[in-house]
Amino acid sequence: MESSFRGEVMKVLLHGCNGKMGQVLTKIISEIKDMTVVCGVDKEPLRFKNEYPVYPSLLEVKEDVDVVIDFSNHVCLNSLLDFGLNKKAALVICTTGFSQEEKQQMKDASRSIPIFHSANMSVGINLLMALVKEAAKKLYQDFDIEIIEKHHNQKLDSPSGTALMLADAINEGLNNELEYIYGRHSKTQKREKRELGLHAIRGGSIVGEHQVIFAGAGEVIELNHNALSRDVFAYGAVRAARFMYGKEPGMYNMQDVLK
Amino acid sequence: MESSFRGEVMKVLLHGCNGKMGQVLTKIISEIKDMTVVCGVDKEPLRFKNEYPVYPSLLEVKEDVDVVIDFSNHVCLNSLLDFGLNKKAALVICTTGFSQEEKQQMKDASRSIPIFHSANMSVGINLLMALVKEAAKKLYQDFDIEIIEKHHNQKLDSPSGTALMLADAINEGLNNELEYIYGRHSKTQKREKRELGLHAIRGGSIVGEHQVIFAGAGEVIELNHNALSRDVFAYGAVRAARFMYGKEPGMYNMQDVLK
Amino acid sequence: MESSFRGEVMKVLLHGCNGKMGQVLTKIISEIKDMTVVCGVDKEPLRFKNEYPVYPSLLEVKEDVDVVIDFSNHVCLNSLLDFGLNKKAALVICTTGFSQEEKQQMKDASRSIPIFHSANMSVGINLLMALVKEAAKKLYQDFDIEIIEKHHNQKLDSPSGTALMLADAINEGLNNELEYIYGRHSKTQKREKRELGLHAIRGGSIVGEHQVIFAGAGEVIELNHNALSRDVFAYGAVRAARFMYGKEPGMYNMQDVLK
Amino acid sequence: MESSFRGEVMKVLLHGCNGKMGQVLTKIISEIKDMTVVCGVDKEPLRFKNEYPVYPSLLEVKEDVDVVIDFSNHVCLNSLLDFGLNKKAALVICTTGFSQEEKQQMKDASRSIPIFHSANMSVGINLLMALVKEAAKKLYQDFDIEIIEKHHNQKLDSPSGTALMLADAINEGLNNELEYIYGRHSKTQKREKRELGLHAIRGGSIVGEHQVIFAGAGEVIELNHNALSRDVFAYGAVRAARFMYGKEPGMYNMQDVLK
Repeated sequence: MESSFRGEVMKVLLHGCNGKMGQVLTKIISEIKDMTVVCGVDKEPLRFKNEYPVYPSLLEVKEDVDVVIDFSNHVCLNSLLDFGLNKKAALVICTTGFSQEEKQQMKDASRSIPIFHSANMSVGINLLMALVKEAAKKLYQDFDIEIIEKHHNQKLDSPSGTALMLADAINEGLNNELEYIYGRHSKTQKREKRELGLHAIRGGSIVGEHQVIFAGAGEVIELNHNALSRDVFAYGAVRAARFMYGKEPGMYNMQDVLK
Repeated sequence: MESSFRGEVMKVLLHGCNGKMGQVLTKIISEIKDMTVVCGVDKEPLRFKNEYPVYPSLLEVKEDVDVVIDFSNHVCLNSLLDFGLNKKAALVICTTGFSQEEKQQMKDASRSIPIFHSANMSVGINLLMALVKEAAKKLYQDFDIEIIEKHHNQKLDSPSGTALMLADAINEGLNNELEYIYGRHSKTQKREKRELGLHAIRGGSIVGEHQVIFAGAGEVIELNHNALSRDVFAYGAVRAARFMYGKEPGMYNMQDVLK
Repeated sequence: MESSFRGEVMKVLLHGCNGKMGQVLTKIISEIKDMTVVCGVDKEPLRFKNEYPVYPSLLEVKEDVDVVIDFSNHVCLNSLLDFGLNKKAALVICTTGFSQEEKQQMKDASRSIPIFHSANMSVGINLLMALVKEAAKKLYQDFDIEIIEKHHNQKLDSPSGTALMLADAINEGLNNELEYIYGRHSKTQKREKRELGLHAIRGGSIVGEHQVIFAGAGEVIELNHNALSRDVFAYGAVRAARFMYGKEPGMYNMQDVLK
Repeated sequence: MESSFRGEVMKVLLHGCNGKMGQVLTKIISEIKDMTVVCGVDKEPLRFKNEYPVYPSLLEVKEDVDVVIDFSNHVCLNSLLDFGLNKKAALVICTTGFSQEEKQQMKDASRSIPIFHSANMSVGINLLMALVKEAAKKLYQDFDIEIIEKHHNQKLDSPSGTALMLADAINEGLNNELEYIYGRHSKTQKREKRELGLHAIRGGSIVGEHQVIFAGAGEVIELNHNALSRDVFAYGAVRAARFMYGKEPGMYNMQDVLK
C-alpha cells in the first residue's frame, strides 16, 4: 500500500486526455497538490481548452514525465511502450481488450520499466475481490455463497464481467468445486452445497452494484460494492499512479496497490 | 383497519392449540390484556400443560367463544364450519391447501357468519402487496420492475409462492403485460421493457426476504419485507381476530384488515 | 396520473435553459418524440450552441408555448407569472425558496392558469412519501418506525430536508404523537414507542439515500429511495409537464401527478 | 483454520447443558457425525430428558472427555479450570463477564491445557471484524467510515457492544485518529474526515444487524452481518470445539479459528 512518492510533485502525461475519462482525470488531478498534468496526448481535438499542452502523438512530447496514465485504446500499445522505454516513465495502462500477444509485449517491456495494468480500475472492486476470497475460504464449510449484481437496462451481457470475476476468485480458492447456477425456478429441488447462484438484475440507470452473500446457520454476511459513477476508474488511476511512482521495473496491478 | 372490539375481553378458541403455531399463539395471547384463550382443541396431547382446557374435538367444547383461530389442517374444515355456524362464532382460518370445493363451502357458510381466510397471514407481506401494486401502477411507465427473494437452503420451490404472488399482483395491475424472466445469462441482449426478473437466492437458514425493485432513470425505489421468524403468522392471526370480532357475516382477508 | 396530452407535440419553453438542469432537460427532451423545446430563456450565455433560439428575457419570446418549465430562480417569479397569464401557458415551477408572499402570488395566478409547484421534483421521493404515510397508519400500532438517510460528506445540514419531510408526513398521520430522536447512546434506556429515530450517515459522494424502516414482532418492512443523480429532478419536470398539458387552472404538485 | 480433528469421534461435555444454549447445542451436535455429547453438567433439572447422563457437578463426571463446551456462568470458572487441568481436556468457554483476576486464572491454566475464550462467539462477527480492519487500513485515506447497527426495542444499551468493538478495531488500525459521532443534527456542519458515525436503530424484534460503510468518491463498500437467531453462538462453539481438539496448551479465540 505504501508508495515511494513523497513531497515532490509528480509529473503526469495523460494519454487520451480529450476522451471522457481523460477529462475526468484532468479535473481530479487539478485539485491534487502533489500531482500535475504536464501534457496530454490525443488525436481528437477538444471543444474546451486544456490548461496543459496537448500533442497529437507521443512522439512530439517534449516534457519530462514521471508517469503516463493511459485511457486511450489498446491499439496504441506499441507507441505507449516505446515512449515508456525511451523516457523511463512508469505506465498506468487503464484500457482493456488486449490480445495475448499484446499482454506479452507489456510483460517484455516491464523488464525495463514499471507497468501497471488491471482488469478493473476500481479500488473498491479490487478490495472486494480480496475480501471475498478470504471470506469464502473461511466460511465455505458452513455457509452458502450467492452473488447478486445490478446494472442499467442497456447492458448487453449478464452476469456482469465483474460478477464472474468475483465468482471465479471464490471458486479458485475452493478448488473449483462450485457450480454456477442461473435462475432457479423449480418446484422440487433443494439447493446443493456446491451451487453458487449468480443473479443479474437489470433496470433503469443503475451504474453497477455487486453483492456477495454468505448465508450460514443463523447468520448472513454480505460484502457489497456500489459504483456511483464511472469517475471511480479515474480515482483508481490516480491511486495507481501514486503507487507506481519510482517503482522497480515489473508488472503491477490493483491488488498490489492494495497490499 | 378499525375493529368493533373495544373494552371487553375477547374469548378465543385455539383450534390446533398443541401444534407449533398454536403454542406460539398461546404465549402471545397470554400477554394481551383484552384477549383470552378460553379453550383449545387438539387431537395431539401436549408435553406441557396448557393453562386452558383442551378438548380432543370441537363437539366437546362447552365454553362461550367469540372467535376461533384455526391453525389445524384444511381437512378439519367441515367440523370447523359446523362449530362456527352453531355457536355464531367468527372464524379466523389460517391453514392453506383448500380445494375449490372447500373454498365454496367456506363461502356458503360466510353468508351466516364472518369468516377470515388469507393466502398469507403476515401483516407485512399483505401490506407490501398493497404498496407494490400501487407503486407499480404509478411507476411502470418510467421504471423497470424486478423481484429478489431469499430463503434457506432447504426450500424446495423457487421462486417462492410469495414472490409469485407479488409478481402476479403487479402484473394484474398492468394488464398482464409483463413476462417473468428467470436467470439472465446472455452476452448480447438488453432488457426488454416488459420483463419482470424473478431472482431466487437460497442459502443458510434465511427465514424469508422479499424485495421489489423499481429502477428508473436516476432513481431506484425498493420495497422490502424481511421475516425474522414464523411467529409473524401468529401475530397476523391475532390482528385478524381483533378485526373479525363482531363483524357482519361475509368473507374477509388480510387486505380487508389493512384497509 | 392520467394526462390529456395525446398524439400532438407539446411545445416547451425552458426558463433557465443554460443552467445545469436546463441543459439536462434539453438533452432529455431531445430524445422524446412528442415534446419539443421551442425556445429557451436565459440571461447567461452558453458555451455550447442550443438547437433552439435563446432569449435573454421572457418579454422577447415570439414562439407559441404550451408549457414553461422553470429551473431559473425564485426571484424571476413575477415575469414568469406575467408570461403565463398573457400566453395562457401552463407553468411547471421547479425552483425553491419562495416567500409566503410569492406563494400567494402563485396561488392568485393559478385562478387563471394551471401552475405546478412541488417541494421535491423527484417522482420517486414523492411516491415514497405517499407509501410511507399509508404504511405508517396501518403499521404503527404494532411496528416501530425509524429513518436512515445517507448523503455525501459535503452536505451541511442533517438530517436532510427530505428525511424531515418524510418524518413529518408520518407524524401528521399519527396525530403528531412521535418524538424525533437523534443519536441514541445510552447504557440503560429502552426505546419508547413514540420515538422516531432519525439517522444521518455522511460519506464520500453519496448522492442521496432515504430508508424508512417499520420494525415489528417477527418482521421488518423497509421502503427505500436511492437517487443516482440529480438528473432525477429533470425527469420529474418532464413528467409534470406531461401532466400539466391542457389542465384546468389551479395549483398542482407531484402528489397530484402520482394520484 | 485447520484442525487436527479427523476421522475420530470427538467426546464433548456440555457444561450448562440444560440452559437455552445448552439445549441448542444438544440438538446441533446430535446431527453431527464425528462429535458426540458424552455427558452434561447442570444444577438445574430439565423438563425434557437428555439422551446423555447429566451430573449436578463436574466432580461427578466419570466419562472420558476431549472438549468441554461451557455455556454456564463465569462464577463456575474455578471448577471448570480444575476439571480441565485434571482431565487434560480442552476448554471452550462461551460465557462472558469475567473479571481481570478471572482472566488471569484462565491464562495461568492455559500453560497446561488449551483454552478458548472469545468476546463474541459468532463466526460471522469475528470474520467481519477481521475484514473491516483490513478494509479500513486500505481505504481510509480516500473513504469515510460509518457504522449502522439495528437491534430490537428492548435493548438497553446503544450503540451495541459489537458496534463499539468494530469501531475500536477500525480505530486501532488507524492510530486512534477517529472520533466517534452520535446523532448528527446540525444545519451548518460538514462531516470532518476523522469522524466515525455510529448509528443505533431500535425496533421490533430485530435480532442484530451490523453494517460498516466505506464511502468514497464514486463508490461505496458495505460489509454487513445479520444475526438471524442466537443459535449462531452455539454454531460458533461447535466450530471452536473442532478447532481446539488436540491443540497445544495456550489461549485461543475466534480470530485464531478464522486464521
